Amino acid sequence: MKLTLLAGGTGGTKLAHGFAILAERVELTVIANVGDDMELHGLHVSPDVDALLYTLGGLIDTERGWGVRGDTFTAHAMLERFGAPAWFTVGDADLATHVERTKRLRGGDRLTDVTAAMAAALGIRARILPATDERHRTLIETDEGVIDFQDYFVRLGQRPEVRGVRFDGDARASAEALEAIRDAELIVIGPSNPIVSIGPILELPGMRDALIAAGAPKLAVSPIIGGRALKGPADRMLASLGHESSSLGVARLYAGLVDRFVLDTADAPLAPAIGELGMAADVLPSVMRTDADRAALAAGLLALAGAT
Amino acid sequence: MKLTLLAGGTGGTKLAHGFAILAERVELTVIANVGDDMELHGLHVSPDVDALLYTLGGLIDTERGWGVRGDTFTAHAMLERFGAPAWFTVGDADLATHVERTKRLRGGDRLTDVTAAMAAALGIRARILPATDERHRTLIETDEGVIDFQDYFVRLGQRPEVRGVRFDGDARASAEALEAIRDAELIVIGPSNPIVSIGPILELPGMRDALIAAGAPKLAVSPIIGGRALKGPADRMLASLGHESSSLGVARLYAGLVDRFVLDTADAPLAPAIGELGMAADVLPSVMRTDADRAALAAGLLALAGAT
Repeated sequence: MKLTLLAGGTGGTKLAHGFAILAERVELTVIANVGDDMELHGLHVSPDVDALLYTLGGLIDTERGWGVRGDTFTAHAMLERFGAPAWFTVGDADLATHVERTKRLRGGDRLTDVTAAMAAALGIRARILPATDERHRTLIETDEGVIDFQDYFVRLGQRPEVRGVRFDGDARASAEALEAIRDAELIVIGPSNPIVSIGPILELPGMRDALIAAGAPKLAVSPIIGGRALKGPADRMLASLGHESSSLGVARLYAGLVDRFVLDTADAPLAPAIGELGMAADVLPSVMRTDADRAALAAGLLALAGAT
Repeated sequence: MKLTLLAGGTGGTKLAHGFAILAERVELTVIANVGDDMELHGLHVSPDVDALLYTLGGLIDTERGWGVRGDTFTAHAMLERFGAPAWFTVGDADLATHVERTKRLRGGDRLTDVTAAMAAALGIRARILPATDERHRTLIETDEGVIDFQDYFVRLGQRPEVRGVRFDGDARASAEALEAIRDAELIVIGPSNPIVSIGPILELPGMRDALIAAGAPKLAVSPIIGGRALKGPADRMLASLGHESSSLGVARLYAGLVDRFVLDTADAPLAPAIGELGMAADVLPSVMRTDADRAALAAGLLALAGAT
């Protein structure tokens, strides 16, 4: 079945991997967040796309959760010596990805095509689609001013309270991304940060309407378990933006967009309230520690959607 | 004393190191060939400038004769995986140099300023001046057509016969390079390939005139010993371009430009013929195997110039 997953960050990437493991049953397309993209050392870095490339390509450093397993850091040390900013650590293989991507983008290729070529080079069967080929950078409004996403996320370690999120650029969703929504037989919003991973995708003009118009079953998976994000600042961010830091709070953000909302077994008591939002609330174990966990959650979602 | 050295490639770089060792007596400026510059993986690579940076910064891989000692090649392997051309091997630290340089150039800095900043970062006291900040690429005319210098030098391993050399671009010498010629108290043309290392510097409009007009003693060191280049294709290139592949052939190319010509002891019999070209011919051991050899040749040149 044609499955389209919206993803960004760790949780969404892990679920993408779960679906990729089920490749015999799933023709996977991942629409990836590019709001985290940045220029580093003059190169175009797409952290969420890279996490998908490395994870689905079997290269990811699972210990660190980012970058390439066994990577070296020789270039980074040299860049530091030249006085380049060192707060965003880049491995050498990772740097090669940024160099190659930047070369192709400067040559006029779209990020969509560059990503497809890289995925093919890494032997990835799934399609990875950047949500847009245009500039669409997440800006974080804090008490100390408006800062770039990676400044907030990496340089400042997610310490500032988030007062708002907006986007730099006037981007449109890519034709491929919209088509992947339209043609999907199942649409899944991954367990990613709803504000800064899924939000940047949904905020692209046409994306929300495409999602509403899509004929496929649509389900979302909560990134919050027991009021906490497993990783990252989603919980604090929800709270500081006036949302409830819970699966219920996330479900409210997706009301009208999805038919089903999947929350972890730990949050089962919240299911009735979510059901009142006009979506089915389903309970599944959703902590993905191992590859088996990822495949099990993916299979559970297929089952829920009636695609056993 | 203010010494200005024209250099490119291995021999010129080694002599630059020799003068740098004599830092208490020599205020060294090196005018570096940039005809070898190329774009690789979308990055600006300046091989001769890098050889100077790495050698004078104490980073050079003396075994290989290029690149950074102890460098890793992780990025190169990844770039190969992405299908990028692999014939020009780039270490990870070396890649960092190209990334940082390219970032600064794209930001509007001149190569002169970028090089000065990098030299400072590496603790280099000598000034390294690219001969020009503008596009000035050596093109090699061969029987198989006109090719880029690095295509000839690295990709094709210097196999094609060289029928001519010309330059892509309409470059002018940098103000700093011309000033370094004008203000020098001693000018040395290093033992570099006269056609593709020194030639690209001399061919810049104004450079030859500046050299002729300069008040300082001017001497050149032969890169040919016993009819052979110690490294590189200078001997074959001289021959295929109709010059004599000898110290005498090189001296003829510099007639009118220098007062003294230094040839290796092995070539002593050629001294009288060189003397007839209107320059003094001096014999010095000029093979630089060790750092001591480099310093000894540098000191010998200072002595010849009367600057003991």
